[in-house]
Formats: sequence, C-alpha cells, structure tokens
Amino acid sequence: MTMNITQVSEMGERPLVSLLSGMFNTGYNADLVIGPGSDDCAVLDVGGGEYLVVTTDMLHRKTDFPQQMTPWQIGWMSAAVNLSDVASMGARPTGILFAIGMSSDTPVSFVEEMARGMSDCAKACDTTVIGGDIDTHDELTITGTALGMVEKSCLLKRKGAMAGDKVCVTGFAGSAGAALHAIEQGIHIPDPFLNTLLEPYPRVAEGQALARSGAVNCMMDTSDGLAMSLHDLADINGVGFQIYESMLPVHEDMGNYVTCDPDEQMDFALYTGGDFELLFTVPPDKLGEARSACNLSIIGEVVEQKAGIRIERKEGTNRSINRKGYQQLDN
Amino acid sequence: MTMNITQVSEMGERPLVSLLSGMFNTGYNADLVIGPGSDDCAVLDVGGGEYLVVTTDMLHRKTDFPQQMTPWQIGWMSAAVNLSDVASMGARPTGILFAIGMSSDTPVSFVEEMARGMSDCAKACDTTVIGGDIDTHDELTITGTALGMVEKSCLLKRKGAMAGDKVCVTGFAGSAGAALHAIEQGIHIPDPFLNTLLEPYPRVAEGQALARSGAVNCMMDTSDGLAMSLHDLADINGVGFQIYESMLPVHEDMGNYVTCDPDEQMDFALYTGGDFELLFTVPPDKLGEARSACNLSIIGEVVEQKAGIRIERKEGTNRSINRKGYQQLDN
Repeated sequence: MTMNITQVSEMGERPLVSLLSGMFNTGYNADLVIGPGSDDCAVLDVGGGEYLVVTTDMLHRKTDFPQQMTPWQIGWMSAAVNLSDVASMGARPTGILFAIGMSSDTPVSFVEEMARGMSDCAKACDTTVIGGDIDTHDELTITGTALGMVEKSCLLKRKGAMAGDKVCVTGFAGSAGAALHAIEQGIHIPDPFLNTLLEPYPRVAEGQALARSGAVNCMMDTSDGLAMSLHDLADINGVGFQIYESMLPVHEDMGNYVTCDPDEQMDFALYTGGDFELLFTVPPDKLGEARSACNLSIIGEVVEQKAGIRIERKEGTNRSINRKGYQQLDN
Repeated sequence: MTMNITQVSEMGERPLVSLLSGMFNTGYNADLVIGPGSDDCAVLDVGGGEYLVVTTDMLHRKTDFPQQMTPWQIGWMSAAVNLSDVASMGARPTGILFAIGMSSDTPVSFVEEMARGMSDCAKACDTTVIGGDIDTHDELTITGTALGMVEKSCLLKRKGAMAGDKVCVTGFAGSAGAALHAIEQGIHIPDPFLNTLLEPYPRVAEGQALARSGAVNCMMDTSDGLAMSLHDLADINGVGFQIYESMLPVHEDMGNYVTCDPDEQMDFALYTGGDFELLFTVPPDKLGEARSACNLSIIGEVVEQKAGIRIERKEGTNRSINRKGYQQLDN
C-alpha cells in the first residue's frame, strides 16, 4: 500500500491533527465537553458551575526559541504560549505544569533562570507552576500544560461567529514576526518592540473580561498568525471574513525600523505568528460591552462563506487572504 | 561563583526537583491542594466534592522505549506511565493529552499506530485522549499529561504512613527490569513476561478500589523501582521500612528464564524500574478491606525512622536497601 510510506511532512500539520483527532474522538468520555482538534483547549465538566480547560504545547530550543533569548525568556515564553490558549477560552488560569528535557551538562544556573521565567509568567497570570517532570535529552525541549476554570455560561469557543459580527483583535498584528525578521537581518530595534517577540504577554485578563462581558460570539488566539486563525474560524463556523488593511493594528516601530512598504507590513500582520493576541467576533450592538472589557481593534466583519476570506487594500482593491502562516511538519 | 558552573548531572534528579519545586512553591495559588515535588500528581480544588489530579511525563525514543517496541506499544506506554500516576492518587482518569515531537519523515502509518496505542490504553482505563500538540523534532519525544478526579475524602497521598502499617504492592516486582535485561542479553522470554515491560497496565481499577476501601494510609507507584519508592515514602513520612525477601512477589518467569540467583532476583525486584505497580501501606486491622479491593502482596512493615530501610534475607540476615533505581540526569 502506498499509504504506508506517506510521511507526515507530505500530509502537513492540520490534516494530521484532523486524522488523529478523528481517532481520539471515537472513544466515549462522559466528562468531555470539547475534545481534540476543535478548539484552543480541551474542555472537561468537572462538576459544579465551572468547566476545566486544559492545553499542552511542546517547544524546542532550535525551532521555537530565537537564539538571543535569555534562559528567563525561554521560561517565560514556555508558560505564555500555554496560558494564551487558556486566555482564549475566557478562562482563569489555575496552574501550569512543565516537562523539561535537557542535556546533562546544562548549568543549574540556566535551569534556575528558566524556572524563574516560568514562575514569573505564571504569577503575572495569577497562577503558579504546580508540577512537572525533568528528563535527559539532547536538545532543550519544554512541554507546558496549562489548566484553567471558567463559568459554564462564559466559555468562549472557536465556534459561534455570525455573519455581521465585527472582527476584533487585541494588541498589534505582526509585531513578533517583524521583530524576528529584524533580528535575522541584524536590524537594531527598541526593546519594547523586541519584547513583543521575546516576552509575549498572555491576554488572560482580556480573555476573562471579554468572557464576562457576554459580548463575544467566538474567540481564539493568533499564535500561528492572523491569516491561519481567520481560516480556522472560517472553517469551523462556515463563514467568510472581510478584513480592511487600513484597520490592521500595526506597531509604529514596524514602520520606524523594519519596513515602510505597505505590502510588507500587511504580510507581517497577516502571515507571521508569535503574537499571542486574541481574535474574536462581536455583534455590532455589543461593541460597547466589548470595548469596556479591554482595548481592542476592529479589523473587519464576518461575511457569508461564499464571499471568502478577503482583505480590502487601502487603495480599494480586494484580494484573498491565503491559508499560510506558522505550521509544524511542513516542508 | 563556582555555583554557576554546576551542571544538572552533578546535582542529580531529585535534588534538582527539590530546588525547582521550592522556587515554584513560592507563589500563591488558591486552587492548589498539593503542589510540585511532593506527590505523583498535582492536586487542584476545582469546586464540588472532588479534587482534580494532574501529572505530566516526557518520554524519548532512545532512552524510554526499548528498541523492539512497536509503534502501538510506544503509544500504549506513553499513556500508561501517566495514567499510573493518576491511579496512585486513587483517582478516576478523565482524560489524557499528548504533545508529540517527531521528525518530518515519520511515516503517517507509524503515527496512526502510535495514536491507536495511546487511545487503546486510555480506553482500557475508561477514558480518552482529549487533546494535544504535534511538532517537528529530531528524536521522537512524547509528553503525556493525564487528568483524573477523586472524591476529596478518598484522595491517597504519599504522606500518611504510620509505624506498624503493612507494606503492600500490586503485581510483581522487578519483572520489567528482568525483561529488559533478557532483551539486552538476547534471552528469549514468553510474551506475557515480555509485556510486563512493553505493555504495562496502569493500576487504575486497583487504585480507585483501594481509595474507596478507606484502608490505605499512603500510596505511590513504583515506576522508578521499589527501592526508590520506599526511600521517597520514608523521606516524606519520617519512617523506616522492614521488608522481607521471602515476601517479594517475583514473577516465576524471572526464575525460569532470567536468573535463579536469589541475590540477582532481589536486585531486580528492588532496584529496577518500569513496573508501574502500586506501593501502599495499610494498618493491620484494615488488611481485609484492602484485600477485598484488589490482589496485593504484603512485603513488610512500616517501622521507626531510626531502624532505616532494610530487607531481611531468606537466611535471616538483614541489610540496608539503598537509594538507587531509575533516575534521570545522573552520570
């Protein structure tokens, strides 16, 4: 059978996730509310008025942490990527675990600094590191698992977008990608802009406030880039998106230090990952409540599926947003 | 400062775990019941009458999976090691997540078989795989995170042993270690004995039955070997142990195929890991309830701390059980 020699790189990340999710979803689990493959976290009913959300993410020294990251930043980042997923469900973080594989000649001081980064990020999100595992491994590998709780009526899912909703994001789009580009090109950029890449701040306060506001129809984070997230939301909701270039929140330092070319700025905003912002949709009559919950930028609207996923340029032309961004397992 | 150049291998696994646990325990976490470093799982109060338990474990192709393991067995094992920790708290598994790092040329059929093994082990423990993450990485690396729920009054901890308690274990001691030795020496052994190593069965039914029995004072699993577990329980409880060689449950195939030497058999039983059995202590007047809960072997008693951790040989001499077994990060 030719199928037996298909490699995961030929299949790609999302099809493989779909395949595995399908297999894992065959079993019966009375506790499960949202299973694998459909949201930023799995959701369990643990009794009482709240749901438990849980997510896991594996990071590696070479592929996930820019070379110039300090050990503290490696720890911070490892916590942040997981806590961002908890935030995107509207949940309150209740703990994070870390399994750490490291070479036996790793300095203890490096591990201490890394642990301090993990702990500091957890504390910044009003929680702590509650457990873990350490292990010998050639390349530094960190798997975080974050847990959170959310009132059942406040849970925010990827599913729920309605045509007519406004599309909103927190923070800036493309900053982490532009900062990474600057590093790779040897361009000096100011620390606050660099830190959008090296010390992303999980939007847990914003996520909870938006959940409580009752104004949000669906939500996810933008860790793989805005375009990938829009495509994921389009698929699960059976909708399209009309985005406006003029509304994309681009950090002024992208223009000051990286590129003034509008095409390049738009590409950073759409097609680079690492921002860990929240992407969500809000019915027009609830924008006031959403704005009271947190700072946000409206970047477009939810439209009918047949209209596709498009961006209107500043000069008035309209073009498709491609499904590309940060994906594992690709060639 | 000389401290800065200390490597983790010089420090060893348990001291490093203590160092990190101390750091992680400094923050305030209102949800936390048992934090890092003190038990097989972290424990969270999620409201209602039950606690949530959660544990994570990272495994690597070269160090954790014997060469001859099938992809299905790799998946099964990855689930089993985590579900064993849930079992040792007396909890009912409610889900397991997997973060999987694999090379981009991994055959899809390999991943499918591995996922089937994960799923089958989860189902054998009355739960399912609820989420995960896939990732590109040189060496196959699997981090599992298992969750469980347990009635607050039934939670079984490492702490609780009392002098006079009987020391009990489920299953056999040293089978996985002896089977690994057989493989390494090219000795053919029957499949059921080989599978004590390759397909360990997490004791989740026994763990829950023991928890409900109310007969158990403390419990943990024996994944790092009986000697390591006895030392861990001794440390946390401030007690000693008197174990009897004649009572150690040694699989008959160890004698039939691997070694008839009583010293070697005892060394396998005490100092090799991979068995994933439950080790627990029971007050003598509650042995009936414990026996009704599951099959068990009494291997000794809890004694005063000053008596140490000792084993009485069949010929009547008594010698110390050393703190050795399976440890990560050691030279």
